[in-house]
Amino acid sequence: MRNNKLLILKIGGSVITEKSKVLTSNLPVIKRLAREIAEAKPQSLIIVHGGGSYGHPLAERYKLRDGLREPSQRIGFSETHEAMVSLNRLVVNSLLEQNVPALGMPSSSFAVTKNGRIHMLTDEPLIMAVKNDLIPVLYGDVVFDIDKGFTILSGDQIAALLAVKLHAERIIMGVDVDGLYTSDPKVDPSAILIPHLTLKELEKLKDKIGGVNVSDVTGGMAGKVLELMQPIAEGVQAVIVNALRPNSIYKALKGEELIGTRISKT
Amino acid sequence: MRNNKLLILKIGGSVITEKSKVLTSNLPVIKRLAREIAEAKPQSLIIVHGGGSYGHPLAERYKLRDGLREPSQRIGFSETHEAMVSLNRLVVNSLLEQNVPALGMPSSSFAVTKNGRIHMLTDEPLIMAVKNDLIPVLYGDVVFDIDKGFTILSGDQIAALLAVKLHAERIIMGVDVDGLYTSDPKVDPSAILIPHLTLKELEKLKDKIGGVNVSDVTGGMAGKVLELMQPIAEGVQAVIVNALRPNSIYKALKGEELIGTRISKT
Repeated sequence: MRNNKLLILKIGGSVITEKSKVLTSNLPVIKRLAREIAEAKPQSLIIVHGGGSYGHPLAERYKLRDGLREPSQRIGFSETHEAMVSLNRLVVNSLLEQNVPALGMPSSSFAVTKNGRIHMLTDEPLIMAVKNDLIPVLYGDVVFDIDKGFTILSGDQIAALLAVKLHAERIIMGVDVDGLYTSDPKVDPSAILIPHLTLKELEKLKDKIGGVNVSDVTGGMAGKVLELMQPIAEGVQAVIVNALRPNSIYKALKGEELIGTRISKT
Repeated sequence: MRNNKLLILKIGGSVITEKSKVLTSNLPVIKRLAREIAEAKPQSLIIVHGGGSYGHPLAERYKLRDGLREPSQRIGFSETHEAMVSLNRLVVNSLLEQNVPALGMPSSSFAVTKNGRIHMLTDEPLIMAVKNDLIPVLYGDVVFDIDKGFTILSGDQIAALLAVKLHAERIIMGVDVDGLYTSDPKVDPSAILIPHLTLKELEKLKDKIGGVNVSDVTGGMAGKVLELMQPIAEGVQAVIVNALRPNSIYKALKGEELIGTRISKT
């Protein structure tokens, strides 16, 4: 698909769930984001959301990232997926309430990884959804893995791969901080938000990216930056923005000026 | 996948829902079937279920079978899928309660039709689920269609295609009648249940198959028989059995004698 107007919107699990409370959604934020998406009316959009407190605690309890090692993990795989389906339905139904024809698409059904990295991903149904003006809503999920039996696949990896594969115009990472900082703003009060970066500058910065949340089994901000490298290198514009700030996602979808970090190839 | 032990179990929408009441499940039957599946412990199993009162009324209201003709149908597509997801979750969660690691897999995410017939279907994740001893639970779904934008895809068509593609040993059609009759048992009291048929006999019979439900947008018993033709021709054993009779699905999974209709190539 050559679609220079395609936007990929990744919404972090820490935005749409209460990360400190197991299986607790942040429904007011989900509903506000659905309204912002409905108002922005993007021509072509794919949404990918994270797991937050729906995915990570179960994935950790059953050690799903390590792969299939004992039979009880199979039930863990199923339960983790079901938890993610229930979070996905909150997002999809909030979009439907805004008359946005959203369609939940679980990556476990159409992607397989090899040692944790996407090995195959069937995009025909996804592309046809976009062509027919529906909005696919994907998510970080448990998936089958050629080396490990199964593992977990982050929404960040899915979003970045789709941005490259489908030649997206822009990938928007909606997170719970304002963007990339000169150091970790959660520990260093002198940290400064970086409004714009080139790929080269990002590469220099990546080892000291601020806002890393080490308890996040799918990688914190450093993981996001690593995933963004390839799309940016291939000419996709990246925007990291605070989705907890009202209107930031609306502005990012519209391509308007905003508080956040823009990253481009040059 | 060469897997001579693979069983495909199709459960009709009229079995797991109250067909006359919109969005009403038949939860006691779903739970009993989950127990029978757990007890039968099949080595390799793929389940496919129908839509019944979750799928058909919405699909009819929005005329989804005819394809995309007006914008309001997009919301209809989303709503119909969401209804099917909620039915699928009842099946998956009932299996999980029996410690059966089930995984819902929506065909809209990995299959595309052309004028209503499956054009592509990605089976890698499905095959890996079976290999890793999980039980995929597919279902009749709204899907994207190359000619019509979108349409509805019956569970019968999915089950028959998988039986052929994955070289299943047996395809079990769990319906709400005892099997195939010499005429329609719902109108003809002299109709006699046919315990066994060859493909040739089935071809002769197919135009006067009993139990046809014309209000079923995915085809009644005649549609099922048409879908079964190819798997049977390729050597897959077919069994049509009344899933509303306790233990019939257990017996069909175990390969035991039962009341129903067996169909084989010769």
